[in-house]
Amino acid sequence: MKAIEQISKQDCLELLQTKSKLGRVAFIVDGRPIVLPVNYRADNDSVVFCTAEGTKLSALKDGAPAAFEVDASRSVAHSGWSVLVQGTAHEVTDPDELYELRHGPLKSWATEASQHWVRISIDEISGRRIPES
Amino acid sequence: MKAIEQISKQDCLELLQTKSKLGRVAFIVDGRPIVLPVNYRADNDSVVFCTAEGTKLSALKDGAPAAFEVDASRSVAHSGWSVLVQGTAHEVTDPDELYELRHGPLKSWATEASQHWVRISIDEISGRRIPES
Repeated sequence: MKAIEQISKQDCLELLQTKSKLGRVAFIVDGRPIVLPVNYRADNDSVVFCTAEGTKLSALKDGAPAAFEVDASRSVAHSGWSVLVQGTAHEVTDPDELYELRHGPLKSWATEASQHWVRISIDEISGRRIPES
Repeated sequence: MKAIEQISKQDCLELLQTKSKLGRVAFIVDGRPIVLPVNYRADNDSVVFCTAEGTKLSALKDGAPAAFEVDASRSVAHSGWSVLVQGTAHEVTDPDELYELRHGPLKSWATEASQHWVRISIDEISGRRIPES
């Protein structure tokens, strides 16, 4: 039995920004949670990713509550960490910001013709770690 | 640019049951989504995992709507797959079922003294794949 350790806010931000490229966004559609993987970038204030038209985009606009999770694990050692972001989602509409995002390093793995960008504010961030034995 | 392919229900179930040990459960607390990693087992009807007392257990009882996601990706190839389960959550209370679960192969990586088991029904299952180039 191993105790779960809490990860400091600063370490959570570092893990989020540097240790993963793929995270999972959770949102609510018709009162039911949905969780889908996206590749993303993060700074100290928000997580950003691109998506096509669809359910995900419709549910992640206009300040909708959202969560974002990244994790890594080593099943042999039964160890790992996870970071959870809670915040609100907005579609990026500022032309300068969109230009920067579209010409930046983050590319969707499956790009559709009509690309939209969603930003989730990091209102709360927390993390847990199960250390190696 | 690569198109996203839909995965058949049968293939989703197989991926869920055989290709991953770690998934992410999404649920709603005070109107906000939360998503956390858990190790799990699945059959054709449900996903089961164990957890300690806490927010996760409180939110995942009594038929609460829940989602469960597994994925795998190869960042070099920009390829991967993900499977999403939607259903309702119940705490397992049947003594025979609890005995079986407690003596089965699924162990929590961070077991607390007070262990509870949660089952999420597979009401809907869908999956997406981004093939290798």
